[in-house]
Amino acid sequence: MSQLGKRIARKIDKAILQFGLLEPHDKVVIGLSGGKDSLALTKILGDKGASERYPIPFDVEAVHVRTDFAEYPAGDDFLEIVKSWGIKVTVLEVPVKQRLREGHSLNCWWCSSQRRLEMARYAAEVGANKIALGHHLDDILETFLMNASGKGELSTMLPRMAYDKYPQTIIRPLAWTHEEEIRDYVRQLGLESFTCTCEWDTRSPRKTARRALEELCAGRPRAKDLMFRALANPVNRYLPEVVSEPSSRISDSQKMR
Amino acid sequence: MSQLGKRIARKIDKAILQFGLLEPHDKVVIGLSGGKDSLALTKILGDKGASERYPIPFDVEAVHVRTDFAEYPAGDDFLEIVKSWGIKVTVLEVPVKQRLREGHSLNCWWCSSQRRLEMARYAAEVGANKIALGHHLDDILETFLMNASGKGELSTMLPRMAYDKYPQTIIRPLAWTHEEEIRDYVRQLGLESFTCTCEWDTRSPRKTARRALEELCAGRPRAKDLMFRALANPVNRYLPEVVSEPSSRISDSQKMR
Repeated sequence: MSQLGKRIARKIDKAILQFGLLEPHDKVVIGLSGGKDSLALTKILGDKGASERYPIPFDVEAVHVRTDFAEYPAGDDFLEIVKSWGIKVTVLEVPVKQRLREGHSLNCWWCSSQRRLEMARYAAEVGANKIALGHHLDDILETFLMNASGKGELSTMLPRMAYDKYPQTIIRPLAWTHEEEIRDYVRQLGLESFTCTCEWDTRSPRKTARRALEELCAGRPRAKDLMFRALANPVNRYLPEVVSEPSSRISDSQKMR
Repeated sequence: MSQLGKRIARKIDKAILQFGLLEPHDKVVIGLSGGKDSLALTKILGDKGASERYPIPFDVEAVHVRTDFAEYPAGDDFLEIVKSWGIKVTVLEVPVKQRLREGHSLNCWWCSSQRRLEMARYAAEVGANKIALGHHLDDILETFLMNASGKGELSTMLPRMAYDKYPQTIIRPLAWTHEEEIRDYVRQLGLESFTCTCEWDTRSPRKTARRALEELCAGRPRAKDLMFRALANPVNRYLPEVVSEPSSRISDSQKMR
């Protein structure tokens, strides 16, 4: 494995230990979109699952949810490549567009919730208790900025999150891994062309948050790691405390809204 | 008073009530740098202090700390203008550069700490219990981004902060006011030229945070207000929770550092 591959593997180990992502004999289903993130995750987590020397023994397989609108420029080749790594891959056909309710238009939330639903169903079928997603450090920090400036709350995607509706737990082993590292690693593997393109993503507020994050962290290699560390380190003494809500007579604005 | 002036005054009232910035019969010293922010604060808070109809009676005066390096393109005219508003202004000469310890170079932290020290001394002399500073919403959000990406903590400048070393409490009545509103208001007053220029500020990481903030909030008028609201709204359920620290054997990185 390349130096970069080893570095990402160490960061995955760090996330697994730090956030308790895996318990011995977990059965993990990896969400394999066909994009660079899930390919890198499948390659490295698949290796760990296959290794008898890995301190935490667990089973792992991949599931690819095929929607009725995403395009795969390189076709299904990535499925064959993942199989060649010795990892079981199952394809689920999900007509996300068809399922849209009357008067609703397609959006990222609807698409991802439908894909999660199918993954949870599949995981239940095969008795998997964990669903691993390819979200990386940049995704988590972008979501943090989106939630702060769009929802008025300090919150983000969690490295480990129990589902409300389903028995499985979502895990994000790439929580410490930078998108740039994944891009370079996938290029090393010669898989850079395997990126499912989605016209919707380009329109999403995520792109704005991404530009802001790059602006904030440019030229400071540790800035993103520090920012992720900050998410687990709210210093309440140095966050504003509301002591009373203004009455509408004195202020025309809503409370802390 | 102009519509914009009234809007800023309402936002000051909102901050005063929401964060408990003023109690009846407080004696407030305003830090008057000569920049647009402190001029706008002095004008509007000075009016409130002078008004018998304002629900919270308080005394207010301004203090200008003169350093040995900042330049005042328009000279001392702003002092005369503030006096013409019926507000007492006291000038303190502080040789910030001269006070530098051997081997230390000038920086924003040193300069502001020296200026705060002198303001606290002056406040003690005149029996003031509050020191009002001109930091606005953008300053608070920029500090939040700087602390997250530079210190690894969720923290910022507080609208109300008790001093550790001194008996006074720092208040920031412009906490809800956007920098853009202040710029426009100062232009309305014909005081846009009264901005003390500081070569150091242009080099500070604040500029980077400012660009990131503008990138994040561009075209979304409510985004900054929502982000400020977020600072008082950490949703611990959706912030990462560290369950164990990786050992150096498995990870070469430090704990959440």
